[in-house]
Amino acid sequence: MDLEMEWLVRTHNRLPADTPVAEREGLRAAERERALELRAQGVLRKLWRTPGSAGTVALYECRDATHLHEALSSLPMFPWLEVSVEPLADHPQEAQAAALAAARAEALDHPEGHDEQPV
Amino acid sequence: MDLEMEWLVRTHNRLPADTPVAEREGLRAAERERALELRAQGVLRKLWRTPGSAGTVALYECRDATHLHEALSSLPMFPWLEVSVEPLADHPQEAQAAALAAARAEALDHPEGHDEQPV
Amino acid sequence: MDLEMEWLVRTHNRLPADTPVAEREGLRAAERERALELRAQGVLRKLWRTPGSAGTVALYECRDATHLHEALSSLPMFPWLEVSVEPLADHPQEAQAAALAAARAEALDHPEGHDEQPV
Amino acid sequence: MDLEMEWLVRTHNRLPADTPVAEREGLRAAERERALELRAQGVLRKLWRTPGSAGTVALYECRDATHLHEALSSLPMFPWLEVSVEPLADHPQEAQAAALAAARAEALDHPEGHDEQPV
Amino acid sequence: MDLEMEWLVRTHNRLPADTPVAEREGLRAAERERALELRAQGVLRKLWRTPGSAGTVALYECRDATHLHEALSSLPMFPWLEVSVEPLADHPQEAQAAALAAARAEALDHPEGHDEQPV
Amino acid sequence: MDLEMEWLVRTHNRLPADTPVAEREGLRAAERERALELRAQGVLRKLWRTPGSAGTVALYECRDATHLHEALSSLPMFPWLEVSVEPLADHPQEAQAAALAAARAEALDHPEGHDEQPV
Amino acid sequence: MDLEMEWLVRTHNRLPADTPVAEREGLRAAERERALELRAQGVLRKLWRTPGSAGTVALYECRDATHLHEALSSLPMFPWLEVSVEPLADHPQEAQAAALAAARAEALDHPEGHDEQPV
Amino acid sequence: MDLEMEWLVRTHNRLPADTPVAEREGLRAAERERALELRAQGVLRKLWRTPGSAGTVALYECRDATHLHEALSSLPMFPWLEVSVEPLADHPQEAQAAALAAARAEALDHPEGHDEQPV
Amino acid sequence: MDLEMEWLVRTHNRLPADTPVAEREGLRAAERERALELRAQGVLRKLWRTPGSAGTVALYECRDATHLHEALSSLPMFPWLEVSVEPLADHPQEAQAAALAAARAEALDHPEGHDEQPV
Amino acid sequence: MDLEMEWLVRTHNRLPADTPVAEREGLRAAERERALELRAQGVLRKLWRTPGSAGTVALYECRDATHLHEALSSLPMFPWLEVSVEPLADHPQEAQAAALAAARAEALDHPEGHDEQPV
Repeated sequence: MDLEMEWLVRTHNRLPADTPVAEREGLRAAERERALELRAQGVLRKLWRTPGSAGTVALYECRDATHLHEALSSLPMFPWLEVSVEPLADHPQEAQAAALAAARAEALDHPEGHDEQPV
Repeated sequence: MDLEMEWLVRTHNRLPADTPVAEREGLRAAERERALELRAQGVLRKLWRTPGSAGTVALYECRDATHLHEALSSLPMFPWLEVSVEPLADHPQEAQAAALAAARAEALDHPEGHDEQPV
Repeated sequence: MDLEMEWLVRTHNRLPADTPVAEREGLRAAERERALELRAQGVLRKLWRTPGSAGTVALYECRDATHLHEALSSLPMFPWLEVSVEPLADHPQEAQAAALAAARAEALDHPEGHDEQPV
Repeated sequence: MDLEMEWLVRTHNRLPADTPVAEREGLRAAERERALELRAQGVLRKLWRTPGSAGTVALYECRDATHLHEALSSLPMFPWLEVSVEPLADHPQEAQAAALAAARAEALDHPEGHDEQPV
Repeated sequence: MDLEMEWLVRTHNRLPADTPVAEREGLRAAERERALELRAQGVLRKLWRTPGSAGTVALYECRDATHLHEALSSLPMFPWLEVSVEPLADHPQEAQAAALAAARAEALDHPEGHDEQPV
Repeated sequence: MDLEMEWLVRTHNRLPADTPVAEREGLRAAERERALELRAQGVLRKLWRTPGSAGTVALYECRDATHLHEALSSLPMFPWLEVSVEPLADHPQEAQAAALAAARAEALDHPEGHDEQPV
Repeated sequence: MDLEMEWLVRTHNRLPADTPVAEREGLRAAERERALELRAQGVLRKLWRTPGSAGTVALYECRDATHLHEALSSLPMFPWLEVSVEPLADHPQEAQAAALAAARAEALDHPEGHDEQPV
Repeated sequence: MDLEMEWLVRTHNRLPADTPVAEREGLRAAERERALELRAQGVLRKLWRTPGSAGTVALYECRDATHLHEALSSLPMFPWLEVSVEPLADHPQEAQAAALAAARAEALDHPEGHDEQPV
Repeated sequence: MDLEMEWLVRTHNRLPADTPVAEREGLRAAERERALELRAQGVLRKLWRTPGSAGTVALYECRDATHLHEALSSLPMFPWLEVSVEPLADHPQEAQAAALAAARAEALDHPEGHDEQPV
Repeated sequence: MDLEMEWLVRTHNRLPADTPVAEREGLRAAERERALELRAQGVLRKLWRTPGSAGTVALYECRDATHLHEALSSLPMFPWLEVSVEPLADHPQEAQAAALAAARAEALDHPEGHDEQPV
């Protein structure tokens, strides 16, 4: 399923430091579950921690900004998240690199009989 | 033609103040021409001046970030423009307002026989 | 009714995350109702969501800054909104584009008998 | 003539420090002349220097943002000015203060026969 | 009474959104009363609203920074105000404009017998 | 080859707008070539354009900050690039998601004879 | 001579790094000379370097903002200086401290006959 | 006593606006007392108010950053103060100005018999 | 043990000023204990106070960003710390300086018989 | 030699990208030489690169801000460096850690006869 557009999404969790442990843990579990659903849908692609903070950097793939907002606002932690989103455009070098990689894979599968070197 | 996604685009023109008049005028004319093409394609929807500056605010409608980048970088002034783009998501109130407006138009066309008032 | 001046208005809703649901819902309903009144008056023209946040971008059309302040401060959520407003000036390209569009529409209505091409 | 809307306008002059004296003086004289015209039209109301810089703070009175942009971009120094504009709304206290001042003036003209004190 | 120095003063009111109505109204009334006193003293000259916010822009006229601080900190809302002050210096163009205006007024009062044109 | 640490790298190209075309094109070609080498080494993993600007967002994988600096400063455009780097830490959800995906793949390969459901 | 108001003035010298040595030295000598005149007038009270930069922090004493602007703009380096000025108000603790110091000095001059210690 | 190094210290008092009056007054009295001790030690040299705010600008003289931190953190208000410190370096012009002032004082004491002019 | 990568870590402690003394002291003691463990592991290398604030600057040595996040989030104060981390790359001058120092030490141990001078 | 105070110093090199290679190399060699002298004096203690930029982070040890300014401004690259300096205060934990380390070293040297374990 090609969702057509990638997004860089940063979150910073502002859940107050004095939130009761049970409430915090409940929110975290629900957050994790929803995030795994978004992964299964191909919407959430990759997640990192920003070291030293309660923040994340993530790659999302969505049809458009409306779809992205629906995905983000479906997270149980959303009311406490500071979120910033950045749209990403394709870079022409990716296609070039993909072609090179394909040519190299081809060369490995059929090592003999290649007259030209891939550039 | 539904291009699916709206963008708020700001530009600030950094063409040096000492650019020769002819070069500046040439660039401006080419810019205008390309902008009218983007309007004809439904990509550039609306353009404003920010008072007191060489800046603009614009509404674009594009398939995705890659399409938007192609449109913006096709402008002859692009090398001198500082551009910031902001993706816009649909607001549910728009659909509600559109339904109300349609109901009102309907009521005007068929004034009798309406029992309920649109809210 | 020509209100003469357009404004780009951003809001960010700072209603605390722990506001009781009933209070929040009541405020939202009142907000929606007032917004629809402002639309009916031609003051609120368009509303978008900024993806990933409790923010909006809107186009307003008002006589002047005093009128705009009255409209914004009449919103039930106003005490919790961080608002920034930006005045917008007409861009000369809009008139040019409107003339072109009119010429094109004219050409479509009366396809024969046009000697000149619209530029 | 009531121009209906006030603006706070800041300028910072970025004319390069190595501009030839004659060119700089010519620009300054033209700037002064155009400013006096804007004053005569009731558009430029007041001008201050920001101490220690090549900047000014000014009050303008214009119909709308388009009118303001025309006024500012008519200044000969405009290509070198960094300008920021801020729309100003009427404050209800001004009307109250004006009424008080009028009452006081009235009291001075007709000192006897006033039963109530102005508040 | 010449207080010698003008100041641009911005305030933003940070009184919490959940302040009881009576307390808020009491503070507002006291604020208004003190502001009118400062006007009567020639200290507060002009007040505007910044549209869309709980902020104001004002012109003050005070002997020096100590006098200005006394005036501002005498406002009942002061503990909740974020205030920024900016000293304003006279601009030489003001004197020039005043001379022109005086010459014009003189010409209107004594229309005949003027040999020179005001510049 | 596990390089152990991921980095988010932003670049903004400040090559002057008036650089001769030949020089610019030569730099671009050399840049592309070096970038493809870094990809082949597993150092440059992914590259995006930020729409509307001469900027990129990239994922790098490097042993440490010294290795990252060597990679970035080996780019022919480096003297004109404004670069910001952000270290990324693993997020525990990635391992969880990988385990789920593996369990799902396993279930697809051996559909019968599974007693437990993958969670 | 009581100039009535103190100012904190920061400067950052933006004279280009490639200015010919003779021009730079000439400007510096003229700057020093003018600064010593401002000291003799009681206008420039104290000057510091900000370590690691071409900046200074200074205390000025001037009648008002117009006087301060005249002093600063009379510096030969003024066209290359980025200046920020901050008005300073008297702190009531200064008077208290001065009274204490006077009492202490008095006690030292007339050590006998004092029953209470100044606090 | 030469403490060797001067510091510019800004404070902004963030004591909540709703602190009970008695607590606030107690803190203020203790703050004043400690500040006078720091003055007696030659550590706190001068204190100003920043007009319109609960802030101060001060000159401190301390051996080093550790000594400065001890002085600042000994203030009873310290837990509510936002503090920024800036180290100050001697400016060579100060020595030059001191020499000039000394020469002038000498000339006043022994007006005759001076062969050289102070420079 | 070579942990391979150095980090500059800033913290600002946002523990509320009204935290009960016992809770604050308990957190501080636990923080100190954990910090000493991180020192013993070679992870925390050096700690400074930023004068005038509840902040620290520290040098950490960690394998990668994941390891750094584990170390920082193991601090008992972590939920109240604002942390920023900055990766540090080796500077080639360090190796050069180390070689020089080694050569100097060698020369001190075996003063005779050296034909070349270390540079 | 105890220089008494540590400083965190950041530099960013703004030498123009089009500086002739010979001039750049000459400046770099002179910079390196002067830096090694500052190391030999115990003034420059440690130097890092900030990855992806022409910047450094360094630890200096100087008597005071005047000494630091002399050291930094003696660098041949100084006219092109953007420098920011931050004074560092001792953290009490350092003394505690040093005492622990000393106790541990003592225990290693005299393993028998120790009744208590160092904590």
